[in-house]
Amino acid sequence: MADFAIGIDIGGTNTKFGIVDKSGHILKQDRLLTNSHEGVQDFIDDLYDKLMPMINEAGGPGNITGIGIGAPNGNYYTGNIEYAANLKWRGIIPFAKMVSEKFHLPVKLTNDANAAAMGEMMYGCAKGMKHFITITLGTGVGSGIVIDGKIVLGHDGFAGELGHTVIRPGGRLHQGTGLRGSLESYASATGVRETALELLAENPNVESLLRDYSINDLITSQTVYECAIKGDKIANEIFETTGKILGEALANFVMFSSPEAIVLFGGLTKASDLIMNPTKQAMEASLIQIFKNKVKLLYSQLQEADAAILGASALVRE
Amino acid sequence: MADFAIGIDIGGTNTKFGIVDKSGHILKQDRLLTNSHEGVQDFIDDLYDKLMPMINEAGGPGNITGIGIGAPNGNYYTGNIEYAANLKWRGIIPFAKMVSEKFHLPVKLTNDANAAAMGEMMYGCAKGMKHFITITLGTGVGSGIVIDGKIVLGHDGFAGELGHTVIRPGGRLHQGTGLRGSLESYASATGVRETALELLAENPNVESLLRDYSINDLITSQTVYECAIKGDKIANEIFETTGKILGEALANFVMFSSPEAIVLFGGLTKASDLIMNPTKQAMEASLIQIFKNKVKLLYSQLQEADAAILGASALVRE
Repeated sequence: MADFAIGIDIGGTNTKFGIVDKSGHILKQDRLLTNSHEGVQDFIDDLYDKLMPMINEAGGPGNITGIGIGAPNGNYYTGNIEYAANLKWRGIIPFAKMVSEKFHLPVKLTNDANAAAMGEMMYGCAKGMKHFITITLGTGVGSGIVIDGKIVLGHDGFAGELGHTVIRPGGRLHQGTGLRGSLESYASATGVRETALELLAENPNVESLLRDYSINDLITSQTVYECAIKGDKIANEIFETTGKILGEALANFVMFSSPEAIVLFGGLTKASDLIMNPTKQAMEASLIQIFKNKVKLLYSQLQEADAAILGASALVRE
Repeated sequence: MADFAIGIDIGGTNTKFGIVDKSGHILKQDRLLTNSHEGVQDFIDDLYDKLMPMINEAGGPGNITGIGIGAPNGNYYTGNIEYAANLKWRGIIPFAKMVSEKFHLPVKLTNDANAAAMGEMMYGCAKGMKHFITITLGTGVGSGIVIDGKIVLGHDGFAGELGHTVIRPGGRLHQGTGLRGSLESYASATGVRETALELLAENPNVESLLRDYSINDLITSQTVYECAIKGDKIANEIFETTGKILGEALANFVMFSSPEAIVLFGGLTKASDLIMNPTKQAMEASLIQIFKNKVKLLYSQLQEADAAILGASALVRE
């Protein structure tokens, strides 16, 4: 096996890529804007121009096993990116094939959340685990499910959309999907912001540091966190509420696949115990006896960008 | 490989067992009461006395590959039956080991719902499928999940407890588990009965054939069905309500493992389209775009008892 693999993480804003050695060390990495190109081919051409000097520095293409890619709505079976809502490229893009033809290297592609799960399994806190679930609490809520040491892809390659499972039937409207009460409508950055605005509106007489942020449209999980550690009542309630809903959702997932651990990462996890305690409590309260006090709730130890690059590169290490 | 395998299905009331040939034909079957024995060893002794003549008729133990067992809270990894609520045997029973020592044959054990899923995969309507979920709508709601052609067991062997996932947070109390709003509290025989009583009480002025059944405590999914096909408004509403909740739960499961099909069996499925139509409608309405109109909802074509015996026997055919 060649010494190095390339990992590419395509996000709604940035595309990050790097050259990874066998032990999961990122030799060199760079990024480019995802949506600033005319078309897909332009994007790939630009990617090529940025990657080739790095490849040559690592000993040339002969020293590269292949290219692994994580992308929104990436399908492992087909190598396509299909109807990705956050990307400019419309319809079905045969992305893996196009990259392979440009680089003359083997290419594997999967969705971004699965790539991150792969990174956790190969190099992160799920190393050695055969059964775990990763949940990204970011702009959206993503998930990667590992069973028997393999990413769950499902019949069509689209398994693991846990952010879209409904946990509050008839609840908050999720703009992107039209669903009501899905996990993502509460446990994402947007969800936390909406909960903040709701709680501020419902409690007009409660003083809160968040009111200033609200006026200037600056409420994020970060500002909520900053207010919460200063003892702000509403800020703390936001994490309580979010954690309760998240924990109940996690319990449902546990009763599906009985994982050894659930690995959380993304912006919201920076609130640490403020979000983790109510999450853990709600999860345990919603489990049947045989699952109680068994499932570890962990934070990812990898840098978020690194997890995705490492995970993507691991696709061609299998 | 020997010509025959034994399948045993241990239920709360009856234990059914049979000798199965390679093509899934049950040569001979019989049953005994599960909870009528002093202890586990007595039960196994009785099972032995009933099975040995059948084994000898099939050419003797040398002609038997092994014994597969499906049991409530049966654990494939350990071969134990652990804390089964509906069995008289308390604590952890090393059941597979005990049976193997009695019969001098290899024994494999799993939970009853997994055994049924195995039966569907080997001999039923999921034949050839690599990704599907079976849901038993019986006294309780059981489930077996197949991913990549394998039953999902999870980290500890207890995966696939979908009946206990919560679909109506804060909803109806489930007596056995203490959870509120779990699928089983609505889509089981008990759940349907409770929904019937609730709807009758909430609509005191609506005439319903079910009122007579209610007085005599005779409401079952069967009697509700009989009233519904006669055009009874409340009876029809019971299936509508149950189907809506079931369908929403199924959508959540689809977004987890993206199966090719969901196979339903158990008493409630006898209501056929009356339950299936609202289930299908609610499931589709709760799915994100990439999953819509993809997942087949099927009824098991196997006799319920047969599915369990066949599935259990398949454990030693793998």
